[in-house]
Amino acid sequence: MTYAVVLAGGWGERLWPMSTRSRPKQLLRLAGDKALVVQALDRVAPLVSVERTLVLTGAGLRESVLKELPTVPPNRVIGEPVGRNTAPAIALAAKLLVSEDPDAIMVVLPADHVIGDAEAFRGAIATAVKAAEAERALVTLGIRPARAETEYGYIKAGERTATDGVLRVERFTEKPDIETAESFLADGGYFWNSGMFIWRADRYLEEVDRHLPELAGALAGFSLGVDDDGFADALERFYADAPSISVDYGIMEKAEEVLVVPTGFHWDDVGAWSALGRVWPIDERGNAVRGDVVHLDSSGCVLSCEQGIVAVVGLTDVVVVRTGEATLVCPRERSRDVRRIVEELKDRGILKDV
Amino acid sequence: MTYAVVLAGGWGERLWPMSTRSRPKQLLRLAGDKALVVQALDRVAPLVSVERTLVLTGAGLRESVLKELPTVPPNRVIGEPVGRNTAPAIALAAKLLVSEDPDAIMVVLPADHVIGDAEAFRGAIATAVKAAEAERALVTLGIRPARAETEYGYIKAGERTATDGVLRVERFTEKPDIETAESFLADGGYFWNSGMFIWRADRYLEEVDRHLPELAGALAGFSLGVDDDGFADALERFYADAPSISVDYGIMEKAEEVLVVPTGFHWDDVGAWSALGRVWPIDERGNAVRGDVVHLDSSGCVLSCEQGIVAVVGLTDVVVVRTGEATLVCPRERSRDVRRIVEELKDRGILKDV
Repeated sequence: MTYAVVLAGGWGERLWPMSTRSRPKQLLRLAGDKALVVQALDRVAPLVSVERTLVLTGAGLRESVLKELPTVPPNRVIGEPVGRNTAPAIALAAKLLVSEDPDAIMVVLPADHVIGDAEAFRGAIATAVKAAEAERALVTLGIRPARAETEYGYIKAGERTATDGVLRVERFTEKPDIETAESFLADGGYFWNSGMFIWRADRYLEEVDRHLPELAGALAGFSLGVDDDGFADALERFYADAPSISVDYGIMEKAEEVLVVPTGFHWDDVGAWSALGRVWPIDERGNAVRGDVVHLDSSGCVLSCEQGIVAVVGLTDVVVVRTGEATLVCPRERSRDVRRIVEELKDRGILKDV
Repeated sequence: MTYAVVLAGGWGERLWPMSTRSRPKQLLRLAGDKALVVQALDRVAPLVSVERTLVLTGAGLRESVLKELPTVPPNRVIGEPVGRNTAPAIALAAKLLVSEDPDAIMVVLPADHVIGDAEAFRGAIATAVKAAEAERALVTLGIRPARAETEYGYIKAGERTATDGVLRVERFTEKPDIETAESFLADGGYFWNSGMFIWRADRYLEEVDRHLPELAGALAGFSLGVDDDGFADALERFYADAPSISVDYGIMEKAEEVLVVPTGFHWDDVGAWSALGRVWPIDERGNAVRGDVVHLDSSGCVLSCEQGIVAVVGLTDVVVVRTGEATLVCPRERSRDVRRIVEELKDRGILKDV
């Protein structure tokens, strides 16, 4: 059977101040009128019922996530006591799923991405599931690159496989410099690493045993199901013991054979404010505007106002975000440095909710 | 006797959103820890007692002004039912003062300027009072220009007069273009028109009779003192009848002989946000910062936060102002265009307090 594992941890700090620790990106209506996490579940629902879905999120967010997802059984939403990046979260999900269904295929989906064509998305997932079953493969969805982005990982696709529409992965490249990214686009045959993975749960656990022994060790003591007594304590222990590492670094780049399903749908990880300039509707001067905003002689800006008024004059390619708590201003091309602002706010203890 | 007439009308719309109609510039602690109008009175107090001071402000602001100026007798603070620019306000004050003291010398002072050296300021006023008495002259204070400013009026000074330190005015030039302003600085002998005037009250009324007959007509019916019954009604009628015109255009540029006292003290009309970059303390990167502000890789900015947090990354010479109601962002050199934002807000009816 196919199961969905929705990763709804983290809080999208580069989208501060709209996104905060208690009101994180995946719970925001950043695109469309539903929270991103709701869209993630809706999108996969025709393939996987909510009963066969696991959502992993921060323990402090579990109640908020449940509220957004009233149809999901509460025991399918797991609150991580501490964030340990993606490899441990997926490992925990895999362990739980194997105990429910030894042949479980897991579809791992980030909760906070924007996808344009749900039909095409499901088609790609179905193809990937086929390959994961038939070839016991680790499969990832590859996104056709829309620009020479330096913030993403790239996948070099190789030869075809026995499954139609599925290629071998030749190589992963994390966050290339701009020249490299441009050469990838010119060469063709490169795809963005979407962070969406499809594989048998037991197959993933084999890879964890092989490449992440510390994680395998933390997982070894974990034999309870979500409804068993002591599950919460076991969860605490697992997250205390598990190393913090991403599935990309920890598994995908080390695994011997990985497959990719090249896709054609529009995808955005909305990783920083600059992304909203691609995701939100654009006015005739190229401004992406939300809320009560007055702008004069300004173009290419991302202007967001949740409370009060934002007024700008004579700005080009600048992000201005106002919430009840804070105002952020930065050039679009500096959006990624919002992370540094958040660090500074933490260091100075100015804001509690970061 | 010498009297002070403090002009505290208007609201400094180019300093929106810190300045608003109900919380106008002259009542803000923009520089130092006292409101500008308080500083204006304090500065002249050693020369003129509060009993010999008249403050003119908008009727809607009268209570707030009185609160800031507890030592000023309430009948010395006049609430203008409607703003008619400076010539009528000064004419009304002159009429009131002449009825109190036919030889009254009036020192006309804007309530919303920043002056560095109060001692030097009072020295210049004393010199001007001497000339106003001895020569029955219209006297203005001239500010030594600190830069080729295109937003100010310029005074070309000419030959000396019988009063030491006082020169004849050859010519006024309103808001020159940048080339002209630069040539004025290169030539020397030019001064900024400070909007501070010193003259006998009766002498000013003669000029009004000569150059502004409509204003003279409105004034003719006005014969009451501030404590007389019917003063409020008379005030209403006067402001209803008076034309809206500035003393600069209406009188100074037309009067036959005007004198100027060149001064050396630091002066700023704080006319727009760019001015705060000159008035507020500057950090090592040239940023003028007030309130809870975090800035990274930014220089030459004016950053003001009254509520919440302002966070900026990678900005150069940009103004960012956050209040509880609004956020303004514009390049420093576009500060004067805040006026256009205010117009837009009025037109769209978004904000009540503009």
